[in-house]
Amino acid sequence: MKFEKAVPVQWIADFTGAKLIGNASQETTGINEIHKVTNGDISFVDFEKYYNACLTSAATVIIINKEVPCPDGKTLLVTADPFSAYIKIVKHFRPFEPAYEMISNSAVIGTGTHLQPGVFIGNHVRIGKNCLIHPNVTIYDHCVIGDNVIIHAGCVLGADAFYFKRRKDREVQYDKMESCGRVIIEDDVEIGAGTSIDKGVSGDTIIGRGTKLDNHIHIGHGAVIGKNCLFAAQVGIGGKAIIEDEVILWGQVGVSKDLTIGKGAVVLAQSGVPASLEGGKTYFGSPAVDAKTKMRELTWIKRIPEIWEKITSTDKE
Amino acid sequence: MKFEKAVPVQWIADFTGAKLIGNASQETTGINEIHKVTNGDISFVDFEKYYNACLTSAATVIIINKEVPCPDGKTLLVTADPFSAYIKIVKHFRPFEPAYEMISNSAVIGTGTHLQPGVFIGNHVRIGKNCLIHPNVTIYDHCVIGDNVIIHAGCVLGADAFYFKRRKDREVQYDKMESCGRVIIEDDVEIGAGTSIDKGVSGDTIIGRGTKLDNHIHIGHGAVIGKNCLFAAQVGIGGKAIIEDEVILWGQVGVSKDLTIGKGAVVLAQSGVPASLEGGKTYFGSPAVDAKTKMRELTWIKRIPEIWEKITSTDKE
Amino acid sequence: MKFEKAVPVQWIADFTGAKLIGNASQETTGINEIHKVTNGDISFVDFEKYYNACLTSAATVIIINKEVPCPDGKTLLVTADPFSAYIKIVKHFRPFEPAYEMISNSAVIGTGTHLQPGVFIGNHVRIGKNCLIHPNVTIYDHCVIGDNVIIHAGCVLGADAFYFKRRKDREVQYDKMESCGRVIIEDDVEIGAGTSIDKGVSGDTIIGRGTKLDNHIHIGHGAVIGKNCLFAAQVGIGGKAIIEDEVILWGQVGVSKDLTIGKGAVVLAQSGVPASLEGGKTYFGSPAVDAKTKMRELTWIKRIPEIWEKITSTDKE
Repeated sequence: MKFEKAVPVQWIADFTGAKLIGNASQETTGINEIHKVTNGDISFVDFEKYYNACLTSAATVIIINKEVPCPDGKTLLVTADPFSAYIKIVKHFRPFEPAYEMISNSAVIGTGTHLQPGVFIGNHVRIGKNCLIHPNVTIYDHCVIGDNVIIHAGCVLGADAFYFKRRKDREVQYDKMESCGRVIIEDDVEIGAGTSIDKGVSGDTIIGRGTKLDNHIHIGHGAVIGKNCLFAAQVGIGGKAIIEDEVILWGQVGVSKDLTIGKGAVVLAQSGVPASLEGGKTYFGSPAVDAKTKMRELTWIKRIPEIWEKITSTDKE
Repeated sequence: MKFEKAVPVQWIADFTGAKLIGNASQETTGINEIHKVTNGDISFVDFEKYYNACLTSAATVIIINKEVPCPDGKTLLVTADPFSAYIKIVKHFRPFEPAYEMISNSAVIGTGTHLQPGVFIGNHVRIGKNCLIHPNVTIYDHCVIGDNVIIHAGCVLGADAFYFKRRKDREVQYDKMESCGRVIIEDDVEIGAGTSIDKGVSGDTIIGRGTKLDNHIHIGHGAVIGKNCLFAAQVGIGGKAIIEDEVILWGQVGVSKDLTIGKGAVVLAQSGVPASLEGGKTYFGSPAVDAKTKMRELTWIKRIPEIWEKITSTDKE
Repeated sequence: MKFEKAVPVQWIADFTGAKLIGNASQETTGINEIHKVTNGDISFVDFEKYYNACLTSAATVIIINKEVPCPDGKTLLVTADPFSAYIKIVKHFRPFEPAYEMISNSAVIGTGTHLQPGVFIGNHVRIGKNCLIHPNVTIYDHCVIGDNVIIHAGCVLGADAFYFKRRKDREVQYDKMESCGRVIIEDDVEIGAGTSIDKGVSGDTIIGRGTKLDNHIHIGHGAVIGKNCLFAAQVGIGGKAIIEDEVILWGQVGVSKDLTIGKGAVVLAQSGVPASLEGGKTYFGSPAVDAKTKMRELTWIKRIPEIWEKITSTDKE
């Protein structure tokens, strides 16, 4: 997320009660997770094993739970609980704004776009031209929708990321990560009934131009879906997965978070994708492997009794 | 889809800019895909391998992308892009009619039927007697619902078919097939929360009398579900699948398009059905096979280490 | 379900037309299925193999389809069709109350709780403090929601149990079990977009304190989910399953009805759980087994060709 205008790092330090180390005079322009961070951003780290990645990233300001040497030109904000400091900043700059009517006054809706009854459009939403939004769709605050987009009934765009920090020593163990990313739907996308697309934690969840999603699909926080993809019903995509252009996923395929499926890959129905897949190939199974390999495996399994017969008959000889 | 009144074939030729070959004076009574076509219908074909099936079908008028000999008594409409001509006709005779209120004035709702708040009923919908429609349900235009039907909250009936024609040479590759079929729910059906049933492309999606669907089920375009079926939660049924009477599908079962599951078949949870299944039997696995065969397979798999032990110990002898 | 005030057993006998045997003067305080029954309750049994379990249960009054010796102090109500008698009682004491506005007057909503537009709140619903209910959520009658609960758009809480009695000799074969249980959401729960939680048949469906549910999850009737659980998107839980505290289920996991998953168990994505699982372990596969065992199995399967090679090369020697 980018701030509307730059914020002095000293203000951030005061607001979070953190100890400032390093450059005290610079301005921050946004706040982001480590994988989305750009120059001017605040990021946070609370595990020693990620310290180095965060300190050497593009982040200008790093909220951290230990005093370490400050890289040149950067600023460290040292606090016992960087996660909570991060949440506090997000809540301040992207507060929840209650709605009291179905279509927010702050939404911008293009010409030729028709909203059927029962559609909820949150604050600061932008919708392009010639879209058709069917009944009982919910579009949360800050979503951005292009031109010629069709969204079928019951869809939910922009719900919170499913992202929690576990604190095992508490009675209520999961602390909610506040999400401040957006959902961006590019031109010519069609989204089937009852599909949900969550907003990113700090970056954006993106559905690329011309992609078509069937019913009951789940797209996790911060996933980036390419152009001209085709996902059949009940597909689930984990957070921050990257699906390149022209990927086809058949029904009920599940894709784990934090991986990449290469351009033009085809994944057959009910497959489970636990790790990145090369483009241009066809996959099957859970865990998904090359489809022909999987088919041969299934044939081999059927031959086990024959193998047993062979070795036990040899015994008898 | 049947037209409200017969349309001269010459009008269709002029409207689509197609070249008319054969009988120029007949009337057309509807438009349908090849598997649903009846006498009087227009159909279309754009792949040579399907030419024969279409030319010898019941269709009276065939939109085709090549001049071929016209079968006796039929009419050919020759045009470079039959798909687009078909779409143009569908959009003309079944245009999208925007709604501006939750319950359309053109809907017909039987006595004793209660609609809870937040229900959307589209144009030309017909609902029978003694039904109960729970909140935030969406029923698109032209759906037909029988008597004593219960529809739980958040369901979507009649959304568009997920059916696209790919044009790989374009920036936006998928052309949307406009659907003009209906959803028909017969008497005594119950539909669980958040279930979606898509309309057929040209024929109807049908849920047979007395069938019970659990939550989050997806029924694809033009599927025909028999009577007294029982589908557990999160089942997905592909387009134009035929599920005969008294079939039981347990949770998360996936069924591919264009196949038949025979009467009384039972498919165990999470199975995937890629091809037709005979009735009266129980199936398991993805791909689904006879359940006992699958169970034996699972047992054999566990014995592979034993087999390995046997052959390697033989080695040592 | 407990009645609002005690009801004489003789009134129940008259109302259902059953023959009363045993104690004719006692009062009934509620009606419940056999697994939920407590002292003062009515229960029913219509299969001989369950007679003993029901007669020796805590139930004070048993609706039964055969005259059997009445246990001391209990009352039997003998009728040809106990299921229908049970349904008649449930419908009388928990009738459907039509709603004519989005928020029922009889609902009680705590301070600091915000309902976004399009939310339906049924009769007798209780919602605690500082909750946030997003647009187009449906909460059926009698649901109880704690404090600090977040419910995302499109969720459905309290829809009917998917529970039917089959009567094969009828044209419409499935008789609906009327549900009278509730949905209870404890404090600090978050529920993702488009998730559905059905009410129990007679007992309550419970989501324990601090549990977080992702999108498109289905929780069946009467399931009891512990505290601090984490369920990823598209998980399905069958009726009356018991999931103990701190269980983690990854995406698209399916859990059968009537089983227990022990505290702290982790079930990997797309697994299917057909039977109870011990706590504290990690599981994978459909059917789910110990995850390491499953991984070894997958490795062994890949070695079948090697085994085949070994035994056939031995042949040649």
